[in-house]
Amino acid sequence: MEFSQLKSWVESANGSLFPIQNLPLGICSYNNKKIVCSRLGDFIIDLSLLYENNFLSIPGLELRHLQNDYLNDFISLGADNISNLRKQLIRLFSVENSTQSGMLQSYMISIDDCILHLPISVGDYTDFYSSKEHATNVGIMFRDPANALLPNWLHLPVGYHGRASSIVTSGTDIKRPAGQIVLKDGEVPVYSKCKQLDFELEMGFVIGKENKLGEPIPIQETLNHVFGLILFNDWSARDIQKWEYVPLGPFLGKNFASTVSPWIISLDALAEFKTEGPVQSPTPLEYLSPEPLRNFDIQLEVYINDTLVSKSNTKYLYWSISQQLAHHTVNGCNMRIGDLCASGTISGPEASSFGSMLELAWKGTKPIPMNDGSTRVFLQDGDVVKMIAFTENKNYRIGFGECIGKIVS
Amino acid sequence: MEFSQLKSWVESANGSLFPIQNLPLGICSYNNKKIVCSRLGDFIIDLSLLYENNFLSIPGLELRHLQNDYLNDFISLGADNISNLRKQLIRLFSVENSTQSGMLQSYMISIDDCILHLPISVGDYTDFYSSKEHATNVGIMFRDPANALLPNWLHLPVGYHGRASSIVTSGTDIKRPAGQIVLKDGEVPVYSKCKQLDFELEMGFVIGKENKLGEPIPIQETLNHVFGLILFNDWSARDIQKWEYVPLGPFLGKNFASTVSPWIISLDALAEFKTEGPVQSPTPLEYLSPEPLRNFDIQLEVYINDTLVSKSNTKYLYWSISQQLAHHTVNGCNMRIGDLCASGTISGPEASSFGSMLELAWKGTKPIPMNDGSTRVFLQDGDVVKMIAFTENKNYRIGFGECIGKIVS
Repeated sequence: MEFSQLKSWVESANGSLFPIQNLPLGICSYNNKKIVCSRLGDFIIDLSLLYENNFLSIPGLELRHLQNDYLNDFISLGADNISNLRKQLIRLFSVENSTQSGMLQSYMISIDDCILHLPISVGDYTDFYSSKEHATNVGIMFRDPANALLPNWLHLPVGYHGRASSIVTSGTDIKRPAGQIVLKDGEVPVYSKCKQLDFELEMGFVIGKENKLGEPIPIQETLNHVFGLILFNDWSARDIQKWEYVPLGPFLGKNFASTVSPWIISLDALAEFKTEGPVQSPTPLEYLSPEPLRNFDIQLEVYINDTLVSKSNTKYLYWSISQQLAHHTVNGCNMRIGDLCASGTISGPEASSFGSMLELAWKGTKPIPMNDGSTRVFLQDGDVVKMIAFTENKNYRIGFGECIGKIVS
Repeated sequence: MEFSQLKSWVESANGSLFPIQNLPLGICSYNNKKIVCSRLGDFIIDLSLLYENNFLSIPGLELRHLQNDYLNDFISLGADNISNLRKQLIRLFSVENSTQSGMLQSYMISIDDCILHLPISVGDYTDFYSSKEHATNVGIMFRDPANALLPNWLHLPVGYHGRASSIVTSGTDIKRPAGQIVLKDGEVPVYSKCKQLDFELEMGFVIGKENKLGEPIPIQETLNHVFGLILFNDWSARDIQKWEYVPLGPFLGKNFASTVSPWIISLDALAEFKTEGPVQSPTPLEYLSPEPLRNFDIQLEVYINDTLVSKSNTKYLYWSISQQLAHHTVNGCNMRIGDLCASGTISGPEASSFGSMLELAWKGTKPIPMNDGSTRVFLQDGDVVKMIAFTENKNYRIGFGECIGKIVS
C-alpha cells in the first residue's frame, strides 16, 4: 500500500491530526516516570516499553535514551537511526500488522492519562524575524512607512538571541511581567505591570546534529542538522520592549516566557508538504542560495478564548529554515543538539493573517472583536491564547498539537 | 592570626595572585580525569582527592560533585556549604597546619601538569552594557555626539542575550569569522572575512542560586544568587555587527566566540574589595536602588602580543552586578545555576582605560602603537590578546588568571 494511504489499526488515528504518517516525538509522564513517546490518534505510544519488550531496535539505542526527561539524548542517535525507528513504528501500528494489536495495546496510554512536558532541553534559543509582512508592518507602525524595512532586511535573515531558561510547554500559565515602561512619550519611566501583553505566532525548528565551533553549515547541508519543527508562541511585552530595545535589541520584553507545543514533528513527516517561498529580490548571496521548494505549507491559527483571531501559514516566510541556519553558522557559530530557532512572527499578506495583536489591532487603533462581544487590543488577565498548526493533503493531515497559555496576574 | 595576614605552607602561594585568601574554583584534567579544583600559588588542589581521603565534608557532598566536567552540580550545594568548604581548605593549607603538609602535598599537582577547562556549563549568557564611558564612546562614534547616550541608558542597565554555546576557555584559538559586511556605506553587502575584529574587556558573574520563573530577585537578595566573578572577553566583529544589528541587536558579530578565564573567584574572596560606584543621576527606580558599596575595585589589563594596550577597573561600571540581576529578573525571568552575565565593555574615563580597540583606536583614526613598532586599529591574524584581572590590599592580592585567545585565519 502506498505510504500516503496507509492506515493504522489504532482507529482514532485515521483521519485525525495524529495519523500513522505523523508519529511526532515528545516527552510524557505517567505512573511517575518520564519517557520518550509518540502519538497516534487519542493515544500516547510509550517507546521505552516498546524497546524493553524488543519491538524497537536501532544501533546504540539504550533504555536511558527513552527513559529520560528530554529528547536530546535520543536525538543524538542520529537522523538515519531515528528515521529507521520511525519505520519500525509505522510497521508495528499499520493495519497490515493488526494481528499484533492486542499485544501492542499494552504500550498505549490514553492521552488523558498523561502529562506532556517540554520535549527538549534547549541550550541556546535564537529568534529570527523572517516574515517580510511582519517586519514591514512593524516598520510602518514604529519607524517610517516609506522605508519600513531596514537596509539589511532583504539581504540576510535578521535574528537575535533569546532566553532558553523561560521556554515552557503548552498549558503553562503566563504571569504578566512587570518592568520599566514609559506611560507617555518623553516622560520618565515608571515601574509597572505590562499593559501591552501580546503573543507572537511562530514556527520553531530543533537542531538534530551539531556543528563544531568555527565550521559553518553549508546551505545544502542545513536540513541534515534539523531534527524537526515545533509550534512556538514568543510572548511579548510591547511597552517594556519599546523602551528597552535600543540599541541592543529586545530583552525583558521577551524573556519572561515562550511557549512551545509538546510535539516535535519530524522533517520526514513534513517532506510531502514543501512549497515555494516568496520571490527573493535582490538575489541572496551565494551562502544563502535557496532550494526551489524552501518553505513548508503549514496552516496556522490563533485563538483568544475560542475566538479565531488569526489564520496564517509558514509558506509566507521570506527566509527559509535552511537560510536561517546557514546564516546563523556562517561565522562559525556552533549549534548543539536541542538548540531551538524560531521564525519570528509569521504574518501573511492579509490583515486576517497577521501573527500578533500589535498588527491585528494595528497598534491599538483597530480593536479585535471577540465572540462574546468584547474587544481586545492587547491581552487581558484570564485570556487564554491557543495556537494550532496543521498541514494536509488529500489523504491525511499532520497536526502539531496545541500551544496554549493563560495570562495570570 | 588575622585572616588578611594569613599565610599558607604552600610557599609559592604567599605573595602570589593565588594566596590562601583567593582559593578560586575551576575544572582541570590530569591523568585523564576531570575534577573540581582550586589553586594555591603554582599548584592545583584536587578537591576530589581531598574528599575521598576525608579532608573535606559538607552536607550533601558526594564524589560526583567533584569528579565532574563542570562546577554546576557542585555549585548546587549552596553558598553556605561552599563557604564552609572554603574555610576547611583555608584551615588545611594555612601555616598553622604545616604538620599535615607532607600528607596534603599528594593532593597538589603542579599547574604545568594540568589542563584547565571551561569551569561551568552555561545555560544562558547575558551581556550588559553597563559602562557609561563605553556607551558614550560608541554613541559619539556611531550616532550623535550631542546625544551619545540613548534615552533609556541612565534609567536601566541595558542588556541583551548572547550565545552560550560558543563560550570557550582561555587559550582556545579564535577563528576569524566570515559573514556579510558592507565595504562602503550605501553599497550592497558582500560575503567576506571580518576586517574589524575586536576584543571587549568585561567582567562576568556566575549564577549560584536559581529563582523560579515569575519570581523576581529583590535587589537586596541579588548577591545571594551570585556564585562568583570571572574575567570575560566578548570578541566582536565590528563590521558584521554594524550591518546586522538593527533593529534586534548584535548577533553574528558576537556569537562566534567569547573567552572566559579558567577560575571563578568567589564573592567571599572579593568581600574586602567593595567600593563605591559612579554617582547615579537620575536616581534609579526603587527596584534598582543600589547599596552604598556596589562595585568591586578590580584592576584590569589588556595586552596584544605583550604590548599593554588598556588599563581599566571594574569600579568604573555605572550599573552594578546587583542592579543588573535585579533588572534581569524584574519581569520574572528565571536564572539557573551556571548562567553567566557579563558587564559589557569596561571603559574608564581616560583614553588609556578604554576596553575595546574600537575605542582605543577611535574607529580607526588613532592607531595603537605596539612594542615591535607596528600599529593596530583592529586585530590581525596571529595576534594574541591577553586579559588579566587582580585586586590587592596591603596584605595580599587576588588574581583571576589569564583570559587569552590567539586569532587564527
